[in-house]
Amino acid sequence: MAHHCYFNGKIDSVEQTNIHITDLGLLRGYGLFDYFRTYNGRPFQWDWYWERYERSARLLRLPNPVQKDEAYQVVMSLIEKSGLDDCAIRFVLTGGYAEDSVSMSKPNLLIISEDIHPVKPEEYTSGIKVIAYEYVRDLPEIKSTDYKHFMILQADIKAAQASDVLFHKNGYISELSRSNVFIFKGDTLITPDTDILKGITRRTTLELAKGHFKIEERSVKLTELLEADEVFTTSTTKRVLPITKVDDSVLGSGKIGPKTQFLLDLINEKIKNW
Amino acid sequence: MAHHCYFNGKIDSVEQTNIHITDLGLLRGYGLFDYFRTYNGRPFQWDWYWERYERSARLLRLPNPVQKDEAYQVVMSLIEKSGLDDCAIRFVLTGGYAEDSVSMSKPNLLIISEDIHPVKPEEYTSGIKVIAYEYVRDLPEIKSTDYKHFMILQADIKAAQASDVLFHKNGYISELSRSNVFIFKGDTLITPDTDILKGITRRTTLELAKGHFKIEERSVKLTELLEADEVFTTSTTKRVLPITKVDDSVLGSGKIGPKTQFLLDLINEKIKNW
Repeated sequence: MAHHCYFNGKIDSVEQTNIHITDLGLLRGYGLFDYFRTYNGRPFQWDWYWERYERSARLLRLPNPVQKDEAYQVVMSLIEKSGLDDCAIRFVLTGGYAEDSVSMSKPNLLIISEDIHPVKPEEYTSGIKVIAYEYVRDLPEIKSTDYKHFMILQADIKAAQASDVLFHKNGYISELSRSNVFIFKGDTLITPDTDILKGITRRTTLELAKGHFKIEERSVKLTELLEADEVFTTSTTKRVLPITKVDDSVLGSGKIGPKTQFLLDLINEKIKNW
Repeated sequence: MAHHCYFNGKIDSVEQTNIHITDLGLLRGYGLFDYFRTYNGRPFQWDWYWERYERSARLLRLPNPVQKDEAYQVVMSLIEKSGLDDCAIRFVLTGGYAEDSVSMSKPNLLIISEDIHPVKPEEYTSGIKVIAYEYVRDLPEIKSTDYKHFMILQADIKAAQASDVLFHKNGYISELSRSNVFIFKGDTLITPDTDILKGITRRTTLELAKGHFKIEERSVKLTELLEADEVFTTSTTKRVLPITKVDDSVLGSGKIGPKTQFLLDLINEKIKNW
């Protein structure tokens, strides 16, 4: 079995799927994506991911060429063809082909099944290290394909023996390269609410935390994060993952904190029963 | 005859050149380009374009896989294969293929010949209209493939019966979507020097203007532009093109001014003898 890709109505193996070089995603960075995974063979939080994909398309002014039901059938067919118990699915929507490298006619939509690249199990205990970097993503509320700052920083992340980058600007934090960030201050769970992509795992986590903790969605200072009791990040592949170091500053106890563990247990439970 | 494309060492027709869907230019917007044209069959200002291409690659931390001499031979061969008296050439350099959509191994380089899309002749007299938009390009000094704001604005540009967009932020102008901007105030030629991509035609124009006008490369307020005697834009395909309207404000005399005409004549003369 191998991964497959839907491309404008046709399904082929990923290996054999190419795109013409006049694509505006390639030539003009005019594209968006979305990304989710299955648990127990079922797309996790499908409704929420679809809603976000449609919103990104609307904000980038890209016409979405498939209806939700049709897309779901494609996704289920790709999952089946993968032969895997669980896999990841990536949507990529671009401005389509333009011979003059500017004029849009009709979008290109790819739906791709992929291997899941899980976090190393020990990182759920030790937490991860991130480097701090002054930047706010351009059009942060859209899941565009614009990750050039993260790509440029790859060498710095590696050199610092870190896993990721924490974006901050004018003293306020926003997000990691591909995930959201939360802090615990006593019994209060705090997370930025502007200049971020609103992650589906962020939403799941907030829903799970309700009733257990006081929740604040608001601007968060970098100094607050550095002095927090616990810090963690959320994403499709990371779920709830502790952050225990920013550059050379140790956060909290330097390992996963009890409240982060509580939320991680809650999300693991939800996943088990998905 | 047809346009051809060099792709990682092989030349094929553009029509038949595809790129695999795991390319980081497509998936992560991790790519740059450069673009020039020939006059009298010879690449115009080749040395300067090559220098800028290499600089963009260095700043984006993309290894450049070809030497200058080899690239020049490829360019000349593509020009010959086009069968055209003159054509445009586009370099596209991306982070290459990454199965995990993040890890770079080796870059993808495309060198493509294209038709030139010239400005309508009457616009050299009437000038063009632009819409003003608050934005500074991300990493403006790099010729990255990031043009998503310009692509999003296409509908607004069309609705305003304009040709392009003028970026400004905090009261200062920077550039158009794909070209630089100059103003004349009396005998002084003024152009922004920060938050811009330093265009090769900008450089050519400054060189030609030296000795004829006082030149100031500095921050330029939007209000200065609106009150200028003459305004024009420079680019590879536009050369020296008057701008006579920003939104509903008429600039200068509302048609090409005498000093802009003088610079346009100088560049046309240079091109004729290239």
